[in-house]
Amino acid sequence: MLDALPKPALDANSTEPLYRQLAAWLRAGIDSGRLKGGERLPATRELAQYLGLNRATISAAYALLDEGHLLSGHVGKGSFVRTAIPEPIQANPGPFPTAAISFTTSRPSAALFPVDAFRQSCLEVLDSPEVSQILQLGSPQGYIPLRHYLLEQARQSGMANPGDDVLITSGCQQALDLLQRMIAADRPSAVAIEDPVYAGIRNAFTQNGLTTIPVPVSIDGLGLAALERTLAHQRPGMLVLTPSFQNPTGNTIPLADRRRLVELAHDASCVIVENDIYSDLRYTGTPLPALKQLDPYGNVLVIKSFSKAAFPGLRVGWIIGPRSTIARLIEIRQWCDLHTDQLSQAVLLRFAESGRLHAHRQQICASGAARLKAVLNACRAYLPPGSRFTRPEGGMNLWVELPPGRNAAGLLEEACRRGVSYLPGSVFAVSTPAPNSLRLSFAGLEPREIEEGLRILGRVCAEPKVPVYEPETALV
Amino acid sequence: MLDALPKPALDANSTEPLYRQLAAWLRAGIDSGRLKGGERLPATRELAQYLGLNRATISAAYALLDEGHLLSGHVGKGSFVRTAIPEPIQANPGPFPTAAISFTTSRPSAALFPVDAFRQSCLEVLDSPEVSQILQLGSPQGYIPLRHYLLEQARQSGMANPGDDVLITSGCQQALDLLQRMIAADRPSAVAIEDPVYAGIRNAFTQNGLTTIPVPVSIDGLGLAALERTLAHQRPGMLVLTPSFQNPTGNTIPLADRRRLVELAHDASCVIVENDIYSDLRYTGTPLPALKQLDPYGNVLVIKSFSKAAFPGLRVGWIIGPRSTIARLIEIRQWCDLHTDQLSQAVLLRFAESGRLHAHRQQICASGAARLKAVLNACRAYLPPGSRFTRPEGGMNLWVELPPGRNAAGLLEEACRRGVSYLPGSVFAVSTPAPNSLRLSFAGLEPREIEEGLRILGRVCAEPKVPVYEPETALV
Repeated sequence: MLDALPKPALDANSTEPLYRQLAAWLRAGIDSGRLKGGERLPATRELAQYLGLNRATISAAYALLDEGHLLSGHVGKGSFVRTAIPEPIQANPGPFPTAAISFTTSRPSAALFPVDAFRQSCLEVLDSPEVSQILQLGSPQGYIPLRHYLLEQARQSGMANPGDDVLITSGCQQALDLLQRMIAADRPSAVAIEDPVYAGIRNAFTQNGLTTIPVPVSIDGLGLAALERTLAHQRPGMLVLTPSFQNPTGNTIPLADRRRLVELAHDASCVIVENDIYSDLRYTGTPLPALKQLDPYGNVLVIKSFSKAAFPGLRVGWIIGPRSTIARLIEIRQWCDLHTDQLSQAVLLRFAESGRLHAHRQQICASGAARLKAVLNACRAYLPPGSRFTRPEGGMNLWVELPPGRNAAGLLEEACRRGVSYLPGSVFAVSTPAPNSLRLSFAGLEPREIEEGLRILGRVCAEPKVPVYEPETALV
Repeated sequence: MLDALPKPALDANSTEPLYRQLAAWLRAGIDSGRLKGGERLPATRELAQYLGLNRATISAAYALLDEGHLLSGHVGKGSFVRTAIPEPIQANPGPFPTAAISFTTSRPSAALFPVDAFRQSCLEVLDSPEVSQILQLGSPQGYIPLRHYLLEQARQSGMANPGDDVLITSGCQQALDLLQRMIAADRPSAVAIEDPVYAGIRNAFTQNGLTTIPVPVSIDGLGLAALERTLAHQRPGMLVLTPSFQNPTGNTIPLADRRRLVELAHDASCVIVENDIYSDLRYTGTPLPALKQLDPYGNVLVIKSFSKAAFPGLRVGWIIGPRSTIARLIEIRQWCDLHTDQLSQAVLLRFAESGRLHAHRQQICASGAARLKAVLNACRAYLPPGSRFTRPEGGMNLWVELPPGRNAAGLLEEACRRGVSYLPGSVFAVSTPAPNSLRLSFAGLEPREIEEGLRILGRVCAEPKVPVYEPETALV
């Protein structure tokens, strides 16, 4: 590998720390395609000697790349350039060999996008008298007609109280970021998050130094007893939950537990942030009320977006909660990015109020039902004996625990070689990676791809694998 | 006023501090139109008695509203609901009586928007084979074709070095926010900013607790000697400048000072952030090289956007700088909001590469030249003797210093009553509000409105005004 790259121009006198310069050099190598997916990086000792740096600098650079999901490192095996980058970096075709059948991304299939309905919504906006207003600077709270529409919809379904208001955000990720800023500024305290959890939730709260408390989630669901202890002893100021079709596990919190959760959090003066992005994608079973609908205390903030049921490339999400909290979030938001893009707000409003969103959702629910059935059948048929997996009734993800002793990250390379990729559980870990777990995102694949992918995966998982130890890392 | 509102439901046991609850109640009164622009709020003592709270709580609530630009308070006169809200909140028609001739907003006139060219750009995007890709989740660094276009343009004009890269942001405001996060996380140090300055620059850096160091800017320009002392003694890690047609003063830094600035900042290991959003809007005189073009050290990051020359409602800006810095900013940005809206990125790319942006810029430069001429002539003709004002050669703003002793904030009410509004200098102050200063944003008004507005303003400023003292605030 060292021959494939020009020696880096590292500057010890730069204000940029050496490890960051080194990480940038490696990233450039990946971006340029000189370092290929699956390629093993030199041992830290080896690269340190080659560059005349100390090993800590190399380790820090590798850690930085790993944080950016560019590497996959396994104890005993060294660090590898990742063969498939997890969401959301992966969006554009990069230099990575994408497996033919990719279970890696929790997002809608582009093949299902209702492009004509989208185009029609755009045309209606372009022909409306509001165009000039849309092109002019907007409100930090969001485009007024969209705010009215969303709040009215939420009121009708019991998702907004009379004292609630709405803030349009640039997707759910910004909603999470604004919430972390608010708690950091106004009421510094820890934030409890599910473990495992979508990396965007974890990183939104950790990247600015807030303390996160993991709430264990397993194939058997969220442990309410453990959560109760956490609330009592660690006293987080905020609890972030995805009650329906959680990412990555696909778990849904049952009704009785939802009721109990609302009480527990209220008693502990802990605000609940309900990440409600998947509940509209229910393919089977009975819909459950949201925590927000069960909350008589005004203690639940709900975040939603158009990304999962419509178009992730259009960055429009929202938060609904008590007016005073929304007012505070607007203050913070204004100096982050002024406001959400108005063209997309106006187009999505047309898409929704014209009934096209509803029609499209019915379509993706029909296709989702077939895909869900396919993935459950294929898991039963092909995963090795002793495997366990969740049985979601909607959403985009399913969680697999391979038989004890199997390493999902370690098997990924072989799976990729045979044309199948997924994300190992470690990508979603907050505190305790379960090496035998992995996430299968099934919503973006056709039933026949799902079946074929799991057939291959089942074979890879069944093969005995001898771990390879390297002197350097084996000593760690 | 107290009769106009229902008594607030304040909850002393809420996790929301009382002053925030109170501010939210007042804000709701303003939003609902029950509290009208120009209306005087009760004295803190009076409201404290009425609500059974202490005066500090009332003051804190007023301060919060003032921070949100909802109030205008003058020593000796109490606090008033603002008659015109400054950018960017003002965007949507609110409950505020807008003066007929408003010099308050530094943004393009909606009447000049090239709506047909915009519509055409949208249609081309909608008809392109890239639509599905645009609707899908994108890259945190930005839409690749737009990145290539901007970087290539920047390279051709010497605004990007071979080692530079670009990050597409959700407008310049997000660029500032990402920069403050980077410096707070990686190299905690103070940030030097111009004083007076656009509130979005000041607030981006102050709202998360970074220390800002004011660099005085007057009608005579930026004081280079003072800046040199600041760099030597206070050692800021970052210096944010708007070298061309600064907001609010309209000042442009001369060439010799630009060269010297680049050297000074480099010698002091202080990164320069060049806010280059107005330089394309030069109506007269000779273009000057950007700091970025004069910098041989890779020590300047430049931020730009489509907002001023095209459409502020589409939130697309960018940062160009050394690749390692851009890599770090991408990491931070990803967990803020994943990426910038792709529909607007694609539409603005079409708008630019089709030549429509260039054609539109020529139009707004022609109209800007006429408006600039009108505002300079009218200032000469109508401002009271002893007034001073800047002579910008482009941009959107001009700075006025009324004769000593005049209070620009105090005169605003009378001006509004007569149909003219502007922003007093205090809105832009970092440390030292100059009470006799004000900003005139002229780019959004027709020459005849500018002339008429300044005629009225000149008369308001010329009238002697007896300050009214109130017992309570006079004691402060």
